Amino acid sequence: MEYIKAFAPATVANVACGFDIFGFAVDEPGDVVELRRRDEPGIVITDITGDGGRLPRQADRNAVTVVMLRLLEKLGRSDLGCEVVLHKNMPLGSGMGSSAASAVAGVFAINELLGQPLSREELLPFAIEGERIACGSAHADNVGPALLGGFVVIRSYQPLDVFRVPVPASLHCTLVSPDIEVNTKDARYILRNEVSLKNAISQMGNVAGLITGLMKEDFGLISRSMVDVIIEPVRAILIPEFNEVKQAALESGALGCSISGAGPSMFALSRSRADAERVGQAMQETFAQAGITGVVHVSGINQEGPKVLEKK
Amino acid sequence: MEYIKAFAPATVANVACGFDIFGFAVDEPGDVVELRRRDEPGIVITDITGDGGRLPRQADRNAVTVVMLRLLEKLGRSDLGCEVVLHKNMPLGSGMGSSAASAVAGVFAINELLGQPLSREELLPFAIEGERIACGSAHADNVGPALLGGFVVIRSYQPLDVFRVPVPASLHCTLVSPDIEVNTKDARYILRNEVSLKNAISQMGNVAGLITGLMKEDFGLISRSMVDVIIEPVRAILIPEFNEVKQAALESGALGCSISGAGPSMFALSRSRADAERVGQAMQETFAQAGITGVVHVSGINQEGPKVLEKK
Repeated sequence: MEYIKAFAPATVANVACGFDIFGFAVDEPGDVVELRRRDEPGIVITDITGDGGRLPRQADRNAVTVVMLRLLEKLGRSDLGCEVVLHKNMPLGSGMGSSAASAVAGVFAINELLGQPLSREELLPFAIEGERIACGSAHADNVGPALLGGFVVIRSYQPLDVFRVPVPASLHCTLVSPDIEVNTKDARYILRNEVSLKNAISQMGNVAGLITGLMKEDFGLISRSMVDVIIEPVRAILIPEFNEVKQAALESGALGCSISGAGPSMFALSRSRADAERVGQAMQETFAQAGITGVVHVSGINQEGPKVLEKK
Repeated sequence: MEYIKAFAPATVANVACGFDIFGFAVDEPGDVVELRRRDEPGIVITDITGDGGRLPRQADRNAVTVVMLRLLEKLGRSDLGCEVVLHKNMPLGSGMGSSAASAVAGVFAINELLGQPLSREELLPFAIEGERIACGSAHADNVGPALLGGFVVIRSYQPLDVFRVPVPASLHCTLVSPDIEVNTKDARYILRNEVSLKNAISQMGNVAGLITGLMKEDFGLISRSMVDVIIEPVRAILIPEFNEVKQAALESGALGCSISGAGPSMFALSRSRADAERVGQAMQETFAQAGITGVVHVSGINQEGPKVLEKK
């Protein structure tokens, strides 16, 4: 294979009650990486689109290429020569797993180019390393679902223990990305290091409820469990109109609505595409009433993870 | 119906990672309540066996009869006359849901005597009230499974939201009740009111893992998820030989082992009855090496909850 073009999906981390442990992938948006073999050894970035010039162009500083370099080193293939083009199809710092989508697209593409020496599960630690480089924190709740597809639980980091949970086929996600930016590092910084035992118990109940609801396809239980008493009350402060937009989503029939990852994007889950589209319109209109523009994406839960768009 | 004899099962609350939200019922031991109609109105306790004379004999002070009185009041049937005999088949303050088994047996029996005016779900608030009277805390993680059977999650108390989670048919529980006593009020008192966000996340991951493992019948995931970083490290101090007994259980093939409820009983889950019996022997022997005697119960997960033993 001389050339490959691969896609990796955006992801919603936390999913209301599951801070740092839950995430799911969506069909769109997603980032695209193109790799083209070259004669000289070494990885070079030849172009990045859609980032407004903000991402580093040096291969040893950009998370996408750093994870490729680590993978090649691990495989003893540092001799490989490769030109990289990255297409960013979602804003940076948007809370939709932008860095995870890029890192997963990169590590997936180079593994394909080499004939799949590693399984997707084996690629996960490299993608997590990409998150550490991009965000300063080696979390897996975006790279996990971006790489494995579906709704993913990170049970443990030491050792890494990640598994998928089945979801109802008709479940749809609305993602609204307002044109404001929240830095993931800031969004982590404002969290308290301690939580009350009472709130921890409440959150654990919702975690159990959401998993059971998804697996039993019990939409009522899913809805009642999409409650976050620990993180949302703190981070919502960073998102103008959060309460109004959430209210609009729920009144339009969403099962639940919360912050996507560290924000400022907000997501809602609904029991059908039609519901999710109506919810998206209501959320967008509510942001617009406060003069905030934003893009809406409606999608099923992506079960596939990254995929090859083209190869030759 | 003039007479009814009813059984309600012992229960294991918390189940390692699910403090205040998880509980399951076992086939044995369990408490038995006998009700016999009498001509005069009012509830009277005529006998209690197995409590060593420690439970109150006045109907308005014993949790079993208080919940009956509340139920009769609610139904407008305070005219009913009834003699009550309670057979305690497990030690008080043992961490096996002793007070819950009695309250559930009582409220279930009187509801049967009256021709089932209320569903089991509708009986739950009365049984919870019994816990408040017996333990000073209106928790539902023992009465929930004692009344509904199976593995139960208490997602929320306000409003009450309780549901069952299916478990593998071969799953078995070993319960070891050492002959020492821990007061539930004390066991709650020593808990910290705050937990670190890090530990809360870890516990949430295990909650998600245990539910998923039970529903997918994934014994490996069940085993990895039976970890409690919040409550067990504190309460284990109250149980002599806790670490040694737990170690013996795990080395004998248990999926996991922790404190049953507030202790001092300890429980283990295993993938078969044979495993659970071997585990019980190892746990009992380890207690015995420190001079502590104790009773072992091996049982499947009780799916039935309370049952009628006799009626006429």
